[in-house]
Amino acid sequence: MIQRPRGTRDFGPEEMVERRYLESVMREEAERFGFREVSTPIFEHTELFTLKSGPAIVKEIYAFKDKGGRDVSLRPELTAPVMRFFVNELNALSKPLKIYYRGPCFRYERPQSGRYREFYQFGAELIGSDHPEADAEVVALAASIMNKVGLKDKVIRLGHIGIFRKLLTELGLNEEEVSGVLHQLDKKEFEEVRSSLSAHSEGDEIDEIIEKAQTRGGAEVLNDLEGEAISHLEQVLRVLESYGIEGIEVDLGVVRGLDYYTGMVFEIDAPRLGAEKQVCGGGSYSLAEVFGGAKTCSTGFAIGFDRVHLALQEEGFRIPSSKVDVFVLPVHESLRWVAFSITSTLRSVGIATEVDLMRRSIGKGLKHADSLEALYTVIVGEQELEEDSVAVRNMESGEQTVVRIEELTDFLEKELG
Amino acid sequence: MIQRPRGTRDFGPEEMVERRYLESVMREEAERFGFREVSTPIFEHTELFTLKSGPAIVKEIYAFKDKGGRDVSLRPELTAPVMRFFVNELNALSKPLKIYYRGPCFRYERPQSGRYREFYQFGAELIGSDHPEADAEVVALAASIMNKVGLKDKVIRLGHIGIFRKLLTELGLNEEEVSGVLHQLDKKEFEEVRSSLSAHSEGDEIDEIIEKAQTRGGAEVLNDLEGEAISHLEQVLRVLESYGIEGIEVDLGVVRGLDYYTGMVFEIDAPRLGAEKQVCGGGSYSLAEVFGGAKTCSTGFAIGFDRVHLALQEEGFRIPSSKVDVFVLPVHESLRWVAFSITSTLRSVGIATEVDLMRRSIGKGLKHADSLEALYTVIVGEQELEEDSVAVRNMESGEQTVVRIEELTDFLEKELG
Repeated sequence: MIQRPRGTRDFGPEEMVERRYLESVMREEAERFGFREVSTPIFEHTELFTLKSGPAIVKEIYAFKDKGGRDVSLRPELTAPVMRFFVNELNALSKPLKIYYRGPCFRYERPQSGRYREFYQFGAELIGSDHPEADAEVVALAASIMNKVGLKDKVIRLGHIGIFRKLLTELGLNEEEVSGVLHQLDKKEFEEVRSSLSAHSEGDEIDEIIEKAQTRGGAEVLNDLEGEAISHLEQVLRVLESYGIEGIEVDLGVVRGLDYYTGMVFEIDAPRLGAEKQVCGGGSYSLAEVFGGAKTCSTGFAIGFDRVHLALQEEGFRIPSSKVDVFVLPVHESLRWVAFSITSTLRSVGIATEVDLMRRSIGKGLKHADSLEALYTVIVGEQELEEDSVAVRNMESGEQTVVRIEELTDFLEKELG
Repeated sequence: MIQRPRGTRDFGPEEMVERRYLESVMREEAERFGFREVSTPIFEHTELFTLKSGPAIVKEIYAFKDKGGRDVSLRPELTAPVMRFFVNELNALSKPLKIYYRGPCFRYERPQSGRYREFYQFGAELIGSDHPEADAEVVALAASIMNKVGLKDKVIRLGHIGIFRKLLTELGLNEEEVSGVLHQLDKKEFEEVRSSLSAHSEGDEIDEIIEKAQTRGGAEVLNDLEGEAISHLEQVLRVLESYGIEGIEVDLGVVRGLDYYTGMVFEIDAPRLGAEKQVCGGGSYSLAEVFGGAKTCSTGFAIGFDRVHLALQEEGFRIPSSKVDVFVLPVHESLRWVAFSITSTLRSVGIATEVDLMRRSIGKGLKHADSLEALYTVIVGEQELEEDSVAVRNMESGEQTVVRIEELTDFLEKELG
């Protein structure tokens, strides 16, 4: 037997029904918000990802040379490809441009629960506005999607990376040092923060930074703070309130370990998932100029599609699996032509119909209908056919009704509701 | 600027609407036929594809070593992955198993019109029946999909590769030689067929083979022929007739240049596409045993999703692009909180709603609403607000109506139909 590659998955029919359901809920919500779908290739020139995330990313992704010697990589995320598309082809559209996408991404890391080498992201980007309402619109979409898919146990935390970028730059740290301290703050490694900053500052400023990074609570925790970033965050919260989005928490400790964020950042956790609890992350950033475009303020998020599905399963979410409506079963080989004609008629009016393709006996046929969870079996028998009729068996009750073929569609449509 | 890799494509919002529409039509039709969706990884162990298609395939695909030194490849097609999944996990399900799938596949070849390095396939496999009705069910699904998407100009041709496998084996050709001659027959290289067979036969048998390979027409062209394969094909045609599928042509010259087909084979062409006119190909085959399972008769097809889209575009197919229903525009910054609250209410009842995120003036706001092709603009003005009302502008007629906010949802739902 040949196994599938480690860290990848196959999805069977039951799981696909759930995944397609979740996907369609996310898609519909995004379109209700006026976002429109785009799609980019599965692989890109490796340079796209090193420009965005630095050369170290190559160690974590599926990077390889194609047969023409080009360095290409399976995409580890979708913001860079989408911004490349924007810079190259979509930048003339009226702003803000609101787009969403969904598809597989790839990282070469140790597979574990909630962490796969091939995983699915659903994401959105709002390109071309730096107003608080643009940030709020993106947070509102992410929160609405989580509500619409029915995720109950979740925490939405909002922060602003600009606060710390500003404070750290004022202390005289260069870009690389700022990035290092942000990573430490993100991981709540406050002792490490102290030692990183000791050369740059007296204790007071360090205390202030560490205290700020632990600010957490309702909108009121911002009351004692000031500055442009705080006032931006207050406006984002006010728009979210107008939108009727509830349960948003301020957590200035959310600094997201990604260097390209510039302003507001947010995360959604599903605490039931434990260590891999983050199901969505996003924020405002400025990437277009990195890919050769004009500087453009953007805000976006990525939802970990698989983790949302996992979290919902933990909460007992179940989608009724799609069933076959009708199984058509001729009692004798010579009657199968009639069976195919009936099958075709039922399908043409939208009834999901299976027909026996194994020349089964009645007994085996009914057993197969059971295994398909068909709701009705249409039995095509010689005796009934003489009167242009068939027997319709309700598979739950076992009750059988003789129905004229010309009335069969109406009969089944009524029965199936 | 960073370009996308050669032979790949980005899809913008308009194109995605069309692609999603086509996908959903195909998906619905497959489910109506009782097929259910599965999904497999984007890359597989390279061995999977060499086992199915021979070692030469490696030259044509994206094969590379992952960071663990494993030989993996971006999938060039989906039948092998799906059969691997069947052998490893789905083989206990009641037969026939009917599954479908859709996703990107990859081939490293010279890009040209209708031929991409990343292309999309929609396919189906019926696993576990060798009856003519199983073959017919698969052809019927492919034909129904082409009808449902609205492809007008198409040719469906049915053949049987078993006819030639048998004749050539009887002439004493070994497996490799048979495969060589089948490829020549597929390309209608009859002179090459003659020279390949000259060592094995007198002229008569060669003439017969070449004549058979040119048999083409309605079901009646089979009347003068005999044998198991012919009778199988006749039954397939009769089932298709019972299904009401029209326009099927017999063409024994369809031998499909793929070694793993064993019996009935078929192709659907869209003649308008010229050299790349084939939009679907399929047939019956036996692959499970190659991947370590028990021998299992199967029939399947793959539709070239991109080519179907191209062919439809050639025929003038257009899907009305999804429009934003409503644009909400506050006339002054201070009114935007009301605008967000209205936006949220409209979205909650399913109206696709955009709101101004750029703090535009009325003039610029209406221009943006036009560029979004919004059907209505809700103008939030101070004067109307004093009476708890807003102005609703019909963007086509320019007509404006003052509507009370509490009646706005009803008003717009009625207007939008």
